[in-house]
Amino acid sequence: MKKIAKTFGLLLCGLLATGVIPGPPLLAAESVDVGAVNAYAIDNMFLFIAAVLVLFMQAGFAMVETGLNSAKNTVNILFKNLIDLSLGVILFYFIGYGLMYPGDAFSGGWFGFSGFGVSMDAPDAVGGNLHPAVDFLFQVAFAATAATIVSGAVAGRMKFEAYLIYTVIITAFIYPISGMWKWGGGWLDALGFYDFAGSLVVHALGGFAGLAAAIVLGPRIGRFNADGSPNALPGHNLAMSSLGVFILLIGWFGFNPGSQLAIAGADNTSIVMVIATNTMLAAAAGAVVAMIFAWILFKKPDLTMALNGLLGGLVGITANCDSVTFNEALIIGAVAGILVVVGIKMLDMLKIDDPVGAWPVHGLNGIWGGLATGIFGGHPMVAQIIGSIAIPVWGFVTMLVLFLILKAAGILRVSRDDEMKGLDISEHEEEAYHGFQIFSNQ
Amino acid sequence: MKKIAKTFGLLLCGLLATGVIPGPPLLAAESVDVGAVNAYAIDNMFLFIAAVLVLFMQAGFAMVETGLNSAKNTVNILFKNLIDLSLGVILFYFIGYGLMYPGDAFSGGWFGFSGFGVSMDAPDAVGGNLHPAVDFLFQVAFAATAATIVSGAVAGRMKFEAYLIYTVIITAFIYPISGMWKWGGGWLDALGFYDFAGSLVVHALGGFAGLAAAIVLGPRIGRFNADGSPNALPGHNLAMSSLGVFILLIGWFGFNPGSQLAIAGADNTSIVMVIATNTMLAAAAGAVVAMIFAWILFKKPDLTMALNGLLGGLVGITANCDSVTFNEALIIGAVAGILVVVGIKMLDMLKIDDPVGAWPVHGLNGIWGGLATGIFGGHPMVAQIIGSIAIPVWGFVTMLVLFLILKAAGILRVSRDDEMKGLDISEHEEEAYHGFQIFSNQ
Amino acid sequence: MKKIAKTFGLLLCGLLATGVIPGPPLLAAESVDVGAVNAYAIDNMFLFIAAVLVLFMQAGFAMVETGLNSAKNTVNILFKNLIDLSLGVILFYFIGYGLMYPGDAFSGGWFGFSGFGVSMDAPDAVGGNLHPAVDFLFQVAFAATAATIVSGAVAGRMKFEAYLIYTVIITAFIYPISGMWKWGGGWLDALGFYDFAGSLVVHALGGFAGLAAAIVLGPRIGRFNADGSPNALPGHNLAMSSLGVFILLIGWFGFNPGSQLAIAGADNTSIVMVIATNTMLAAAAGAVVAMIFAWILFKKPDLTMALNGLLGGLVGITANCDSVTFNEALIIGAVAGILVVVGIKMLDMLKIDDPVGAWPVHGLNGIWGGLATGIFGGHPMVAQIIGSIAIPVWGFVTMLVLFLILKAAGILRVSRDDEMKGLDISEHEEEAYHGFQIFSNQ
Repeated sequence: MKKIAKTFGLLLCGLLATGVIPGPPLLAAESVDVGAVNAYAIDNMFLFIAAVLVLFMQAGFAMVETGLNSAKNTVNILFKNLIDLSLGVILFYFIGYGLMYPGDAFSGGWFGFSGFGVSMDAPDAVGGNLHPAVDFLFQVAFAATAATIVSGAVAGRMKFEAYLIYTVIITAFIYPISGMWKWGGGWLDALGFYDFAGSLVVHALGGFAGLAAAIVLGPRIGRFNADGSPNALPGHNLAMSSLGVFILLIGWFGFNPGSQLAIAGADNTSIVMVIATNTMLAAAAGAVVAMIFAWILFKKPDLTMALNGLLGGLVGITANCDSVTFNEALIIGAVAGILVVVGIKMLDMLKIDDPVGAWPVHGLNGIWGGLATGIFGGHPMVAQIIGSIAIPVWGFVTMLVLFLILKAAGILRVSRDDEMKGLDISEHEEEAYHGFQIFSNQ
Repeated sequence: MKKIAKTFGLLLCGLLATGVIPGPPLLAAESVDVGAVNAYAIDNMFLFIAAVLVLFMQAGFAMVETGLNSAKNTVNILFKNLIDLSLGVILFYFIGYGLMYPGDAFSGGWFGFSGFGVSMDAPDAVGGNLHPAVDFLFQVAFAATAATIVSGAVAGRMKFEAYLIYTVIITAFIYPISGMWKWGGGWLDALGFYDFAGSLVVHALGGFAGLAAAIVLGPRIGRFNADGSPNALPGHNLAMSSLGVFILLIGWFGFNPGSQLAIAGADNTSIVMVIATNTMLAAAAGAVVAMIFAWILFKKPDLTMALNGLLGGLVGITANCDSVTFNEALIIGAVAGILVVVGIKMLDMLKIDDPVGAWPVHGLNGIWGGLATGIFGGHPMVAQIIGSIAIPVWGFVTMLVLFLILKAAGILRVSRDDEMKGLDISEHEEEAYHGFQIFSNQ
Repeated sequence: MKKIAKTFGLLLCGLLATGVIPGPPLLAAESVDVGAVNAYAIDNMFLFIAAVLVLFMQAGFAMVETGLNSAKNTVNILFKNLIDLSLGVILFYFIGYGLMYPGDAFSGGWFGFSGFGVSMDAPDAVGGNLHPAVDFLFQVAFAATAATIVSGAVAGRMKFEAYLIYTVIITAFIYPISGMWKWGGGWLDALGFYDFAGSLVVHALGGFAGLAAAIVLGPRIGRFNADGSPNALPGHNLAMSSLGVFILLIGWFGFNPGSQLAIAGADNTSIVMVIATNTMLAAAAGAVVAMIFAWILFKKPDLTMALNGLLGGLVGITANCDSVTFNEALIIGAVAGILVVVGIKMLDMLKIDDPVGAWPVHGLNGIWGGLATGIFGGHPMVAQIIGSIAIPVWGFVTMLVLFLILKAAGILRVSRDDEMKGLDISEHEEEAYHGFQIFSNQ
């Protein structure tokens, strides 16, 4: 069809040139316009749907984190997940978005600002152009993801007020600044560092912020014995956690494919489909390999390890899902599944209490995603290494400073009594499961 | 089609080569056609996805309402949410749709009917034309939303049979009739009243129907003391309620953006994106402000207030999400957050028992949405005031009559014994949480 | 933009008419191209979204099955649902996909293989062409659906290892082979058998595999008395099950509409909308009729019957959702609602223990869907009968053999002690609800 049309067009060209026929290119010009306007609709609709899927991840994180913790801290964790999204939207709207996208003129730097708020001006209606509203919606969902990763790592002991302060700082400043380094055209981008959908920009940042918080906070009461050996403090609802993981998997189909930022145009369409399948393959490999590896280590197939393995596979493929083959996606996911189990054991040995495995899943595998982008994705290895150090260090150090200040101010951790009672009662005077007979696991 | 085009193209080629005919608008016309057909696909796909998101809200309502009530009424609430959707689909298909859309000829009236059932005839395949099937699917999801709002307000005491009767009446008659007043081209529309996605048409109708039900039913046993002071009857699963709120937020991205009914065409595309972001901003502001306001009043950050604040923000922006700026969306959401808290306190003072806050969220903020459309959206204020009175009054009065009849017939409220046992056992002989040790909170 | 194009077009028109410039019909050719490329984006995006919705059904199945079983088997059921997806993705990628789609050359046979893995080569960018990546993603979600249906039927007694072996066999071989008979151009397709979205190919296969498993395994301890009378072993969380059913309903809007495999082009667009509405109508009728029928039989409105009725309606419409009218969809759903209740009673009488009703919902109604395709859909009845026998027999017999082998090898069923303790502790040493006081129902 295309070929015939082309041939026909060329033939027509000749005829027109000879003036034999008068020819009405009016309709043709109009029709090009229709195609462009349709492409504009397609691309913006695609990113809108992707944004909705990423926002759905907030529900996934809330369910995963809540289920993996004690019943007595349920309201607190849910509230943190609700409010880091809500506060995050407002702060990223006013400040973060302008910091993350300092404008086209800006290039290669460390810090820039294009102004407060988000424009309502529609761009030219052609494919590839995104309305600022949907671009903001997609980006703010990413910011909220980075922020909410921390809520799992600090579960059961961080004061609600401290978490609010943290949320303001990370969504308004910390995430947008390092995000700009790559996605806003900053120095990491200029260096050739590649991070397609944010293994580092989003996940490692959140994972290392969580690690900083876990270190400064110290472990929950009873998490480690006097001799340093760990006690498991099992979650109170693994059905909820499993649902959360399924929701995160679904949301990731917005996170990764959406990061192409366009689907109209043959190449965009095709690569989005490859990204989606790579995402699924890495997730599957992560779950299966984490299950097998944990089974070998602990002699039992462990559900939470498989769940975290799936998430680890997703984090690992995030930076490179557009750059690797299907078989490579399986390898990246498989390695991620092992790293999750190893990371959890490492934290135990270091006596760091990360109740949901936020660092192994998002921090460690964020770095793995960045390196895998060099190993399999063909992107320059040196730039990948630099980016895979710079962003975790940025997230870890800035957040370490913040949490140390909060600690010094005495507003970081709840009292021993409040922790034993549970944060739901002590911080919110609300119980999550009224009427149920529940025993504390601490 | 393709084959014909090919054959025709080759034929034309020959004719053109011989100079017999003057020129080929064929391809151009064909290409315009492709653009139109693509726009038809884009618009219908968009509304289909929006309809699916709105249908997902049924899950959200079910989770919110169930979690905010006693464990012993879980099966009953879930069943009501399942069956108002199921019955609603059937009744809206046979009767409601024809009442709500009496046809193009109809204009400015109070009541009309275009016939039973839904056509299967495809429209011309151009952008902006919707297949009746998807138009029905989208609209029936709205009808089910209006209906299901009430299930929260009547929780714990209304007989299942009474709820079935109510469902039939509201989805077949009450909602479609007032819906027609605005969206079917009725008198409110002729008056200039504006309600983009249904702050009033859907939410206030449901909210005031719920208020009527709550008043006629009376409070649950133990909800108010002899001196009139209220007792909280806490929900049994705030994790479920939080999940429900996240699902409602996600579903609202179908509710509001979908109400544009088209996304192809530059202006449609752009406004859909603005609508989506306004929706997110108002929700965020509602959650944050309700949290802060409740914190000041009650000295503790209260999760259920923040959850309802988010929903209130969504209801408030629904009528005007296409007409206001981002900053105005934040203001509308912020006011909604305050109104939710105020509304809940008002009901307590009036000794009206609305277990989930259906009226503050959907009723009071439905009116706020209608007024905000005048204040910020530039729509004529008088028409907004009339619409913001007419629809709530219609919903309240018709439902008050219905529930009074059901009460007089003795089929509205369960017996005292049945209420104490819980509706799961007394109405369904099913327990929701078999094996769990649960204490009643009444 | 449009105006400029129009003006430019008119100007060009004049110039061409005078023969001053040679005229660029290139635009016309280009515009046809834009339309085709847009259609390619639309179709692939549509199938991508549909695939995501179908994948979401895994969460639905996990919630339905978990909630309908004892609390003590929660981790085990969740794990089975997680891992049949994860393992299924890997095996269907390497083997199943090549078995199911042996290629265009293949026609009418029983068995074929087009090779290992999935191509990354993009097709020509025109409407109707799907990238292999998204085709795989959509198809693997179907394979996982067929596989995961069984996890409900075997709940509470099958060893985790046995389930892993089963998963490998069904996703790599059993499902793809019979799937090919119809969708890969095999003998059932050549015969004229019609199964639009898989009432038989997916649901009946899974349902009858589950029946085979339930028979070989035998009932759970305490499920039937010595005199053959059944004891209900109630589920531990009907809120979770209800959420699962809502999620499945949502996912089915990917399952059925997505099976058109294209939405661009007027006919595709229109039929997708009809499919979506037929899906909703059949689901609604299934829920309402199952409720009424069970109410008559058991004197109480039973939530689990209504939930399964809704699912039964969905299964019944799956084969014929593109071939029947709205009214016929209601009839198909209504019959499905009755069949669900009848099927559950039949299993009780036969002393077969299918804890979630997998066979009544997916097996019996899968066959009903196939027959209804002949009765209402106008497809040749003989072919429908043959297909509606062949696929269930294939699924039942192959799986019967597999489970008998596993039983003979002593790795099918857990010990009596392990069953009493619950599979969470005995198989995984993990409890799902740590801290909650729970009594066993066996």
